[in-house]
Amino acid sequence: MSSVPKLFEIGRKVDPIMIKYLVEGASEDFKPILLHQIEAGGKRIRPAIVLLSCEASGGNPEWAIWIAAALELIHNYTLLYDDIIDRGELRRGKKTTRAVYGDAMALLAGLHYREAINKLVNRSPASYKLHELVSQAIIELTEGERLDVLFEQTGRTERYITEKRITTPSWELYLNLVQKKTASLLVASARAGAIVADASQEIEESLSKYGLNLGIAFQVIDDYLDLFGKEEKFGKEIGKDIKEHKLSNALILLALEELEDIDKNKLLSILRKESSVDEISEGIELIKSTRARERAMNFAEERVKMAKTVINLLPNSSAKTLLCELADSVVKREV
Amino acid sequence: MSSVPKLFEIGRKVDPIMIKYLVEGASEDFKPILLHQIEAGGKRIRPAIVLLSCEASGGNPEWAIWIAAALELIHNYTLLYDDIIDRGELRRGKKTTRAVYGDAMALLAGLHYREAINKLVNRSPASYKLHELVSQAIIELTEGERLDVLFEQTGRTERYITEKRITTPSWELYLNLVQKKTASLLVASARAGAIVADASQEIEESLSKYGLNLGIAFQVIDDYLDLFGKEEKFGKEIGKDIKEHKLSNALILLALEELEDIDKNKLLSILRKESSVDEISEGIELIKSTRARERAMNFAEERVKMAKTVINLLPNSSAKTLLCELADSVVKREV
Repeated sequence: MSSVPKLFEIGRKVDPIMIKYLVEGASEDFKPILLHQIEAGGKRIRPAIVLLSCEASGGNPEWAIWIAAALELIHNYTLLYDDIIDRGELRRGKKTTRAVYGDAMALLAGLHYREAINKLVNRSPASYKLHELVSQAIIELTEGERLDVLFEQTGRTERYITEKRITTPSWELYLNLVQKKTASLLVASARAGAIVADASQEIEESLSKYGLNLGIAFQVIDDYLDLFGKEEKFGKEIGKDIKEHKLSNALILLALEELEDIDKNKLLSILRKESSVDEISEGIELIKSTRARERAMNFAEERVKMAKTVINLLPNSSAKTLLCELADSVVKREV
Repeated sequence: MSSVPKLFEIGRKVDPIMIKYLVEGASEDFKPILLHQIEAGGKRIRPAIVLLSCEASGGNPEWAIWIAAALELIHNYTLLYDDIIDRGELRRGKKTTRAVYGDAMALLAGLHYREAINKLVNRSPASYKLHELVSQAIIELTEGERLDVLFEQTGRTERYITEKRITTPSWELYLNLVQKKTASLLVASARAGAIVADASQEIEESLSKYGLNLGIAFQVIDDYLDLFGKEEKFGKEIGKDIKEHKLSNALILLALEELEDIDKNKLLSILRKESSVDEISEGIELIKSTRARERAMNFAEERVKMAKTVINLLPNSSAKTLLCELADSVVKREV
C-alpha cells in the first residue's frame, strides 16, 4: 500500500501557519494577490521533508513547523518570480498570479513573501543558523534561475543574455544547474529538520545528501513529464521546455548525445526558433526515437536509491520510512 | 559652514561591507549586475542615520555598521524593483540595472540583494529584533509601491489596477502613501541605531519620530524637485511624475486644491493621457500658477523642524548635531 496520500497530509500541516504569516501586515486589497500562488495547490513536499527529517533525527516535529512553512513559502516565492521571468500563464493547471494580477503586482507579492519567510525563520528555534541556511538556498535558487535563462536558445533580446547564452551544454553543466534550481531547496529542507532537532553533524550531512539526490531525481522526472506527461495530470503544458527554448531538459540533452547530425540539428533548430505545435511534436518524436527516456528514468531511479541509502545510518523510525517512501513517490508520479 | 560633505562621508563607511556581502556567493558573471545599482551613486542617507542614531543614543557606531549597510541595501533593493515596475531607464543620471541587463536579470539581482540584507542583519548585534524591524519596513515599502502604482492615472491595463485605481486622492491618502514608500525606511534606520545602542524605549520612539518627519519632508522635496529641479543636479528627468501619470506628487495635489475647474481638469487630463513634452510643461506652468510650491516648501520645513524638535530629549552630542544638520540638508538640496 502506498503512503502517498499520508505524505501529502504531512506537508499540509503548514498551511494555516503559512497563510497566517503571509497575510500578516498586508492590506485587505493585497491579500487575494498574496494567497493566489499558495492556493493554486502544490504537493507540499518541502515541508513534509522538513517535518520528517526533524522527527527522523530525534526531534519533535512541532518545533519545525515554522521553518517547514518557510520552506514551502520559499518554493512558492521562486515560482512567482519564475512565472514573471518566463511569462508563464498556467501553473498547476491554474492561471498564474502574474496572469491574473499582472507582473507589477506579482513582483510586489514576491517581496511580501520574502518577509513572511523572514518572520517564520525568526520565530523558529535555531533561527540564527536557519537564517543562514535560507539565504544560502535562495542565493543558489537565484543562480539556478539565472543559468536556466542562459540555457534558453532564443526568445530574449537582452545583450547580456545573448552574450552569455549556453549553447553547448554538457551533462555536468546540467547537473550544476539542477543542483541549484531544484536540489538546493530540498537540501535546505532536509538540513533544516536536522538543525531544529539539534542532530549530529553526521546526521545533518546524510540528510543533506538525501535532499541532493532526491532533488536531482525530481528534476529529471520533471523534465520527463514536461515532454511525455499527461497535461491534465501534470498541470502544465506538454513540451513547455521546447516552446520556451530550454536546452536545460535532461531528455533533450540525452537525446542530443544519441541523435545523428541531421536529426540533432533538426531538434536544435526547433529549440532555436518560435516553433509551432507540430514542430514541438516533431521534436518530441525525435527524442522518443532515442534511448533518452529509458536512460533518464534509470538515472532518476539510481538517484532515488542513493537518497534512501544515505539515510541508512539514521535509527529506524516511521519518519525515516516515510522519507524513503517520499523518495520512491518522486519517480512514480504520473509517469 | 555646512557639514553636508561630512554627512555624506559618514554613510559611505558602509560601502566596503555592503559590497562584500552583496557579491558573496555570487558567480563572476552575476557580480557586475549586482554591483550596478549601488555603484550608480546615492547619498547614503540611511546608513548615516543608522550610525548617527546609534552614537546619539550612547552606542558605539561600529556595532551598527552591518545594519547600516543592510538599510542602504534595502533602499537599493526597492529602487531596483521600482525601476522594473515603472520601466525606468535612468536613475541618478545613469542607466538603470534593468535598462542595461534587462528585467529578468534585474529581478534576479533583487532577490540576491535581499539575501545580502538577511546576512548583514543576522551578523548584527540585536539581530532578532532587527530582523523584525527590517521585515516590517520592507512590508511597508511594498505596500507603498502598491499604492504608488494605484495613484497612477493611466498607462497600465491590468484589471486589478484599473479597478483599484485611486482617482480622487486626498492629502490624508498622500501622507499614508509617503509614510509607507519613503518614511518607513528612515524610521527603520533611526530605530535600528537606537536598538543596536540598546537605548531606552523613549529614545527609540523619539528617533522613530525623527525618521518619520524627515521622511515626509524628504518626499515632499523630492516631489518639488521632480517638477522644478534642475535635471543635471537632480539626476532624474524633470516632470517624470507627470509623464508617469502619478497623482501622488504633493505639488500636484496642492495645486489641484487651488485651481479653478477649467485648469484643474486641464491638469488632470494631462496626467490621464500620454502627454507630450509641451503638455508636461503646460502642466508644470499650471502648478506654478498656484501657491503649491510655497505651501509644499513650508510643509517640508515644518516637518524638518519637528524632526529636530523630537530628538531634543537626547543628550547633546556631535552625532545629535549632525542628525539635525542632516534634517536641514533635506530641504536645502538643490531647490
